[in-house]
Amino acid sequence: MKRSIGIVGAGVGGLHLALYLQQHGVDATIITDRAPDEYRDSRLLNTVAHHHVTIARETALGIDHWSDPKLFYAYHDHYFNFPEPLRFRGDFTRPSRAVDYRIYLPTLMEDFMRRGGKIEYRRIEQDDIAPLVNRFDLLVVSTGKGALGELFTYRPEHSPYAQPQRRLFVGLYKGIRQPEPMNVTLSVSPGHGEMIVIPTLTFDGMANALLMENVPGGDLEELATLNYEKDRQHFLRTLLSKLEKHHPTTYDRIDRSQFDLAQPQDYLQGGIVPTVRNTTVVFDSGKCAIALGDVHSVVDPMMGQGANMASYAAFVLGEEIVKAHALDVRFCETVDLRRQDRVLAAARWTNRMLAPPSQAMGALIVAMAQNKALADEFTENFNYPENQWDRIATPERIHAWLNRVSSAKAASHIAAA
Amino acid sequence: MKRSIGIVGAGVGGLHLALYLQQHGVDATIITDRAPDEYRDSRLLNTVAHHHVTIARETALGIDHWSDPKLFYAYHDHYFNFPEPLRFRGDFTRPSRAVDYRIYLPTLMEDFMRRGGKIEYRRIEQDDIAPLVNRFDLLVVSTGKGALGELFTYRPEHSPYAQPQRRLFVGLYKGIRQPEPMNVTLSVSPGHGEMIVIPTLTFDGMANALLMENVPGGDLEELATLNYEKDRQHFLRTLLSKLEKHHPTTYDRIDRSQFDLAQPQDYLQGGIVPTVRNTTVVFDSGKCAIALGDVHSVVDPMMGQGANMASYAAFVLGEEIVKAHALDVRFCETVDLRRQDRVLAAARWTNRMLAPPSQAMGALIVAMAQNKALADEFTENFNYPENQWDRIATPERIHAWLNRVSSAKAASHIAAA
Repeated sequence: MKRSIGIVGAGVGGLHLALYLQQHGVDATIITDRAPDEYRDSRLLNTVAHHHVTIARETALGIDHWSDPKLFYAYHDHYFNFPEPLRFRGDFTRPSRAVDYRIYLPTLMEDFMRRGGKIEYRRIEQDDIAPLVNRFDLLVVSTGKGALGELFTYRPEHSPYAQPQRRLFVGLYKGIRQPEPMNVTLSVSPGHGEMIVIPTLTFDGMANALLMENVPGGDLEELATLNYEKDRQHFLRTLLSKLEKHHPTTYDRIDRSQFDLAQPQDYLQGGIVPTVRNTTVVFDSGKCAIALGDVHSVVDPMMGQGANMASYAAFVLGEEIVKAHALDVRFCETVDLRRQDRVLAAARWTNRMLAPPSQAMGALIVAMAQNKALADEFTENFNYPENQWDRIATPERIHAWLNRVSSAKAASHIAAA
Repeated sequence: MKRSIGIVGAGVGGLHLALYLQQHGVDATIITDRAPDEYRDSRLLNTVAHHHVTIARETALGIDHWSDPKLFYAYHDHYFNFPEPLRFRGDFTRPSRAVDYRIYLPTLMEDFMRRGGKIEYRRIEQDDIAPLVNRFDLLVVSTGKGALGELFTYRPEHSPYAQPQRRLFVGLYKGIRQPEPMNVTLSVSPGHGEMIVIPTLTFDGMANALLMENVPGGDLEELATLNYEKDRQHFLRTLLSKLEKHHPTTYDRIDRSQFDLAQPQDYLQGGIVPTVRNTTVVFDSGKCAIALGDVHSVVDPMMGQGANMASYAAFVLGEEIVKAHALDVRFCETVDLRRQDRVLAAARWTNRMLAPPSQAMGALIVAMAQNKALADEFTENFNYPENQWDRIATPERIHAWLNRVSSAKAASHIAAA
């Protein structure tokens, strides 16, 4: 079946889909409001780690421009800033990697164009929707910007929060020593927030992203309103003093004489209201628009799931487009049936981690500190959020998981004895 | 995980599930209101053909008591009683088979008990529900009878009809010649109804089920109120005259001197309101009841899907129980995610066939009469209703299917030339 797909938005979801379709001989057109050369000087977009399932998709697309092993990190370093601090690590089966999206996205756009892909640069307003729907056999909406995102209605049963649960303060910094081998640190200051330290390839080589997830009302909240341009010294001094108090293992990696934003525009402040939306709009003609990525489910960045889910869903959508005999509402249903469990699980897991930890979650943390196999499984499940959700959805499930892992450990001790 | 499953209902869904769990070492208890020895003299229960995917499940369960090839039929014989009659056949890849459920169900109950399974004989009333929920780790509701069925709420978006669309007149007859090899005839009298003729193993060997799907207001409707006990001659005479007029190819197989019900209680009259229900009820304790079979989705028997879907869903549920670490609402969600597409497709396809045929459906019928590959594919999809729905959900999908098949035919002609 000859078909033409319109993709509005050039984030990771839109680009992975476009490249997938291109690779499979399906005509795809990207429509976005930002050209590749506009990324270089823009403000930091986000902080994103790609887990190995996403990297495998990049390999399949032939866009593995960042395959140097030195760019990858192999494990999560967990730190809990309790009076008696808790620290443990969890290893992935295969490493993850973070590349600044101001490099990543335009590189993929150029890959797509070099291979003959078409990108149109414009914003989509209300009046543009009907002509777009008519023009393509299927419209993929992978940007929440503008009038298109509003077509997709909320799913309140999967959107438990009306407000951001963290006040985000995200920056790319130089002057933070990389451990050898590299890792991502997940540092928790109970009651105040979490910080995810991500070794990230940016314009001048490796830097560290500090993704600070600050609890509203906590001691770290003020970071979300610091202004670098107005008072650089105050910005850095305040940040350093907060790191020293709340995230000391990361503070210990800092060379104060070098510590600074990698570039002045390399920080972001704000907050996400985690939201799941219905994914399909049917127009009078019978043609459909389908949501991909954040328009479908936007999550707080704490668990690093947003981009990985967008890439996952892009491949599901791409595979289904390639084999579809029609791009109608039944098609969209088929796509949703395949992608919804993982996408929803990422949202549910993230939303759960934003809530104050249950006793069972506390027991899981303590158990992970004592049992590396458990911590490894938790870490690997960053690739498979549906598996994580199967383990942590309820206190009963957490306890069942702990029992399984401790039985397995006891059995292996007996076998070794 | 040690667990105990309560299964209310001993239809094909409940029995296939119980046997599956028993085979996999999971404790299962059946609760039903009918003992095996009460089936022999009961009224005809239904007319059910098992398609090869269901027969493969029977083989897996070790309950293939009816494996004699002479019991199987290999194809559908389609007849349309147009002024210019249309007749064609569609072959299965592997044969189907029908056994009277008054033989089938008690045999499986005995298999289950002989292997150590427990069956309790009683009706479940409102007051029994709470103790049942407490007693088992999961309650499977595979009967709509009594108070339990009412726990599961309607899904109006999948239940388009408020009234039965056919007035059913179902009987098991002797005196209808079996063709060699055996087939199922699907005979359509436009505007009046369909008749499915199913070679069925019953108490005295093979007979033929006439499943007559009579359109309300049509010439066949009066069959739905014939009374054999009151006037046998009138019953048979009326039926014969209707068959002669509306379903002549089947009438031609009848030996009038032998033609009669196989037994006086071998007929059923009534109608089905096709209904899809939500499948999960969570009780205060966190324990769940999950619907299986007709309680989940009851379909008109025209497409022969009800029992096959119950068996399919029983295996999905059984497989998930065996590997589950919890039998909670997340578990039920996982089960539904796996089974819903096929189960819903069976309902949608059947509901579509109950409606007056669209132009595209008419084109499909004509095309099947001219292209055996197409008729074979339609026939094989009785095993895979989701594939059927993918082909017939819309007129566009039907036309796309016809185009694909005719292109393939043209290509094979060219290759042969």
